[in-house]
Parts: sequence; structure tokens; C-alpha cells
Amino acid sequence: MRRVAIIGVGCTNVGEHWEKSLRNLLVDAAIRAMDDAEVETVDALFVGNMMSGALQEQEHLGALLASHLGLRGIPACKVEAACASGGMALHQAFLAVASGMYDYVMAIGGEKMTDRTTPEVTLALAMADDREYVVSTGASFVALNALVYRFYMEKFKVPQEDIALFSVHDHKYSVNNPHAQFRKPLSLEEIMKSPLVADPIRLFECAPIGDGAAAVVLAPLDKVKGKEGVVEIAASTVATDHVSINEREDMLTLWSTVAASRKAYEMAKVEPKDVDVVEVHDAFSILGVISLEDLGFAEKGKGWTLVKEGEIEKDGKVPTNTMGGLLGRGHPIGGTGLYQVIEAYYQLTNRAGSNQVDDAKVALTQSLGGVAGTSVIHILKYVR
Amino acid sequence: MRRVAIIGVGCTNVGEHWEKSLRNLLVDAAIRAMDDAEVETVDALFVGNMMSGALQEQEHLGALLASHLGLRGIPACKVEAACASGGMALHQAFLAVASGMYDYVMAIGGEKMTDRTTPEVTLALAMADDREYVVSTGASFVALNALVYRFYMEKFKVPQEDIALFSVHDHKYSVNNPHAQFRKPLSLEEIMKSPLVADPIRLFECAPIGDGAAAVVLAPLDKVKGKEGVVEIAASTVATDHVSINEREDMLTLWSTVAASRKAYEMAKVEPKDVDVVEVHDAFSILGVISLEDLGFAEKGKGWTLVKEGEIEKDGKVPTNTMGGLLGRGHPIGGTGLYQVIEAYYQLTNRAGSNQVDDAKVALTQSLGGVAGTSVIHILKYVR
Repeated sequence: MRRVAIIGVGCTNVGEHWEKSLRNLLVDAAIRAMDDAEVETVDALFVGNMMSGALQEQEHLGALLASHLGLRGIPACKVEAACASGGMALHQAFLAVASGMYDYVMAIGGEKMTDRTTPEVTLALAMADDREYVVSTGASFVALNALVYRFYMEKFKVPQEDIALFSVHDHKYSVNNPHAQFRKPLSLEEIMKSPLVADPIRLFECAPIGDGAAAVVLAPLDKVKGKEGVVEIAASTVATDHVSINEREDMLTLWSTVAASRKAYEMAKVEPKDVDVVEVHDAFSILGVISLEDLGFAEKGKGWTLVKEGEIEKDGKVPTNTMGGLLGRGHPIGGTGLYQVIEAYYQLTNRAGSNQVDDAKVALTQSLGGVAGTSVIHILKYVR
Repeated sequence: MRRVAIIGVGCTNVGEHWEKSLRNLLVDAAIRAMDDAEVETVDALFVGNMMSGALQEQEHLGALLASHLGLRGIPACKVEAACASGGMALHQAFLAVASGMYDYVMAIGGEKMTDRTTPEVTLALAMADDREYVVSTGASFVALNALVYRFYMEKFKVPQEDIALFSVHDHKYSVNNPHAQFRKPLSLEEIMKSPLVADPIRLFECAPIGDGAAAVVLAPLDKVKGKEGVVEIAASTVATDHVSINEREDMLTLWSTVAASRKAYEMAKVEPKDVDVVEVHDAFSILGVISLEDLGFAEKGKGWTLVKEGEIEKDGKVPTNTMGGLLGRGHPIGGTGLYQVIEAYYQLTNRAGSNQVDDAKVALTQSLGGVAGTSVIHILKYVR
């Protein structure tokens, strides 16, 4: 297997892009990433997207994007793994370079969600869970996470305020993230007073609906070593789980995250204590807390203590979501897994501005599909 | 790059499976392929599918299928490239094995189309073309192919009967294909008298709407050499084109097929004359004819002569669609690219029954997305 490096990244702001269609957003992100990587073409393209069929009545995004990028001819396809589509597109791009068949490969992900009504988007998001046996009961995706949240509070005797703190944390950091959807801080009181979406989940504990696209350019490490801004993908791993929480033995453990992260630590030859920056897939505050546990940074039932004790701050033991996470930066589904990698890349290459973590050398990103029906883990290492 | 082999295949019949949902079809095909390959698990799974979002309101097929196969945990995702989704899933599986990261990998593809109304399916199929600039005009996918058909007849002075012969050919062979949707022969007269769908395309010149799933199990060649039924994937290539015919310089050339097939011949170190069996993506009779040209088996404007002169029969110079092609076997979109590979595999392993091509050693399959916005080419070689 060839070693694989990131050589450039680019993205659009996350937000309501009324003036742009999905293809425009994808093209914008791709051009920025290619400029950043200083390449004029790539050998293959993997497009992470979940809902273009349901929301835009458009598939075949691979060829569509290759053509609109002026790269007619290059191999291209769409990769879908629900909300982990962006992370999964990067895994495919990683395999493509690792195989030796392609050298310069771009993973790009994006979603356009604000053109449709909330019920339409709610139904489309629920396609991440089991349509026949679960979604058909009327459960929305936030309702399923609410069950996890309520059970966590009951089992571990944790007040909601201690979990909602995750959202305070994220919004504190997204203030300084130029591509974040939310650029103002939120207090715990504001979060707890925000509307109830699905009991106990409050509005400001949910990642917002938004538009955005993000792209990452890869190359074989041995061809780019010595170049400015080269970061190695030391691990790229995937694991799946039963998509519905009712099928699981323990609904408070993201089993796919446990499995994929353990494979990733082995592949990258690092342990949780070696990780300097973490990006977790906090589509809801509770998922951020549980993810810290299942990635090995806290004992089960204790993830919230890391937040409360300041350990996920940029100068803490486990700097986490230092660019605002899904709650602050936003969550344009197919793009999210790549926004996370871009933000981790910024930290490793000293481009994180006032959110910079000192001397960050190793970063981990976790991209979830559904309630962790899929987990994609990447471990990145700065190369000098 | 590691060399990659097919070690087993399986599929459902193509047809109207009212009693089965998409997941059931996919599970059936997967279990048959794993039985055929004599493996109890696989290391990764790639699911080719185009329309599950639009037709089933279900995404996240990778994890859903892994779980329902009893393979919870394995890496899995959906791969989409319009009607080439099945071929593209195989390309991804090929890269996964070639990279060295995964050993036993399954590519599976399927579609469930008969649960929805014809207008719903027609709109979903049109997602293969450009929704914003072309489909919005009201053009259906068959209408776009009708433009190509009409122009071909005009430019090369070919009567429709000579092109429609492709459908006669396919139906002759699907009679003996146990998993084909159509098991009775059709005369040229019956085809020419069938209802007009989009002038000049007649109903029996169109691949039918149907349900089905097909799966192929891959392994590193060096781990399975000497085993019964091992076929090497000597080439797996992809090329894209502008998705809409109005953007192309020459709408009678499937440029992506030209590009991908030339790369494939080079990769497999064969020439068109070395190919013993061909599977072309004849979603419409005209696409079968043009594909023969663009794959290098006939000059531009002369593909139909191969059909008329019997050269695509099982004992001809270029045995083509010897199990019935899309017109006869059927075209469950995401499955089709893998049905083609299964049928080529049957020919190479002497399992094609009364349609067997004598002494077949090299096979080529062509999987198209849209009007060849994407082409995926595989060249298979029998290994002894």
C-alpha cells in the first residue's frame, strides 16, 4: 500500500446559499482545494453526498462535477454513507491513491439543504435510518437521538446542562472560524431556553440545516514529501453497525466508532493520548459526549466531564472541535466529513488562526452516518 | 498494485419482485455470490445503486446491507454513477483489493423500480442527466436517446430496421438466460410494431423497468490462484463525459467509452480482436450499435453491420450480449453493471449453458451512466 498525503484543501462558507446550486458549491470548493494544492487537474474524483436525489432530483454528480470543473474525462462517482458520505468519499480517495492506480485524487463533499421545506429535509435526513421498519413509525432522526440522550441522562445520572455544555464549547470556537455557519457565542442559558425539538433535545443542541461543500486533494506521499503543507493520512478506517438503535445491544455505545477507531489507532501506530486535535461528529450535543468516550478519550458515562473540566479546550488534554464542530460550523451533510478534515489539516499546518492548538502533530476526525450506523475515522500526521 | 480476481457471483432473477423489498433482493444476491465464492464473510462491501433515495426514501444502503447480511461491522457504502452504478461499485471493489487494504471484497448492485408509478420512475431515471439545464425542459431520458437515434439514421443513412435488429438479437439470447426478464424471442416485425415511446424509439427497443440485484466477490489473485472458477480482472477503468448530449462536439460518439476502453485495452494488454465475449450497455438498441463502434469493434457508422451480418452471434467474430443484454435480460439500474460481469464470468468459466461461446478466454463489459456521461469498462481473463 502506498502512503497517502493531503496536499491542499478548500471549502465554501456553510450557510444559506440561495444564489448557488449544489454544483456551484461543489465547483467552488474544488477550485479552492486545487488552487491550495497547486494542481491544475486530478486523476480521479469522489463526491460525497447523501440527498441530491431526494432534494435536487439530481444524481450522476461525479460526471456532472468533472464536466463543470473543466475536467471532462476523469473517473468520478458519488459516494454515499448517509451523514458520513464526506468521510467515506475521503476513504475511497485514500484507497484510490494507496492502490497505485491514481496519483492526484480529490475527495469532495457537499449538500444543498436550504432550498426545500423543513418537512422535506426532515424526511430526507431520515433516509439515514431504516425506512421500512423505523422511519415508517414516524420517528424523525432527531427523535432517535433524543431516545439516546434521555437514556444517557437516566443511566449515568447526568443533568442535561452538563451535556448541553458541548454546544457552548462549539459555539465559542466557531466564532473564529471564517467558514462557520454560526459566528456568535451561545450561553448555556440561551441553549437551555431554546425551543424543544424532540424531548430533551433543544434547538441549539442540534446541528443546523445548511449548504456547503468542502474538498481535499490527495497525492502519494513519496511524490510530495518536502513540499509545504503536506499532511499524511496515517489511518483511514470504516466500520458499520446496525443502522437502527433498537437493533443494538447497547444504545449508549457507538460500536462502529469503537471498532473503526481501534483499527485506526493500530494503523497509525498511535494511542488516544498521542492525539493533539480531535474532530467529533456532534450532530447533537449528546453525540459529541458519547463520541469522546467511544474514541477512547473518556470512560463510558464520563465524556461530559472532559467538557465540564475544560479538557476539550484548545489548551486542554483533548482539544476537540476547535473550529466549532457540527453545532457551530454547521453540517451540510455530504460535506461535513471533509470540513472536519480541513479543520484538522488547518491545525496541523498552523493555519487555524486564533483557534490554533499549540504544536499540533496528530489529529483524529470521526464522521458518522446516522446514529453511527457508519463510522469513518481518519488520523492525520504532520510531515516535515 | 495487487492483481485482483473474481471468485464467485450471484444474482436474483430480473423481473417484478412484488414480494421483496430492495434490501431483500440485495441480500439474496449477496448470499448467492458468497456461497458461489465459498466465503462466509467479506472484508468490505460496495453497493451500486442509483435511485433508492428517490424511489425507496432509503439511503445508507451500505450499513443497512452489511447489517442485514449478518456482517455487522464491515466497511460498506453506496456507490452511484447513474446507470453505471453497478460497474462503478466493481471498480471501487477492485481498487479496495488492489490497494492491499482489503482482501475479500463484494461489489453488489441492485434496484427496485416496479413499486412506483411510471412517471415517478421516469423522473428518477432522468436524474442521470442534468436536472437544472436539460431535464427541466421536459426531456425524458428516452427522448434524449431518441435524438441520438434519429441523428444516427440521418447521418449514416441507416434504416431503423437495421438498428432495431439489435433487439432481435438480444431477445434470442435471453430466452436461454435463467435470470432474464424476457424469455421469449421477438421478431423484427413485432419490435417495429410495438408502441412508439419517443420517436423513433419503439417500446421493444427499450430496456424494461425491473427489479433485481447482482453480486460479485473479489479476492487478491495470488491468494486464490489454482482455485476453481478464478477469473482475473485484467482491467478496470472509468471515464466521464459531459452528461448532456447538447454539450458534446459529436453526439454520435460515446467519448467516455472510447477513453475508458482504450485505457482498458492498454491495462489488460489486449486489443479488440483478442476479446471473445462482449457485454455492451444497450439501454436502447441504438446504444448497443454505437457502443460496438466506440469499443473498437466496428468503424463509426458501421456498428449495425456487425449485427446484420451475424458477427455478434455466439459463433461470430464479436460475440455480444450472449445472455440477452439489457434489452433481454433487463436493466435494474444499479444492478446492471454487475449482471454484465456475471454473464461474462459465466462465459469464461463455461457456465453459460446453451449460450456458451466456445473457448472464451477474454471478456469485456461496458457499463454506461446516462448517455455515457460515465463509462466503466472491465476486461476479464480466465486464469488456469
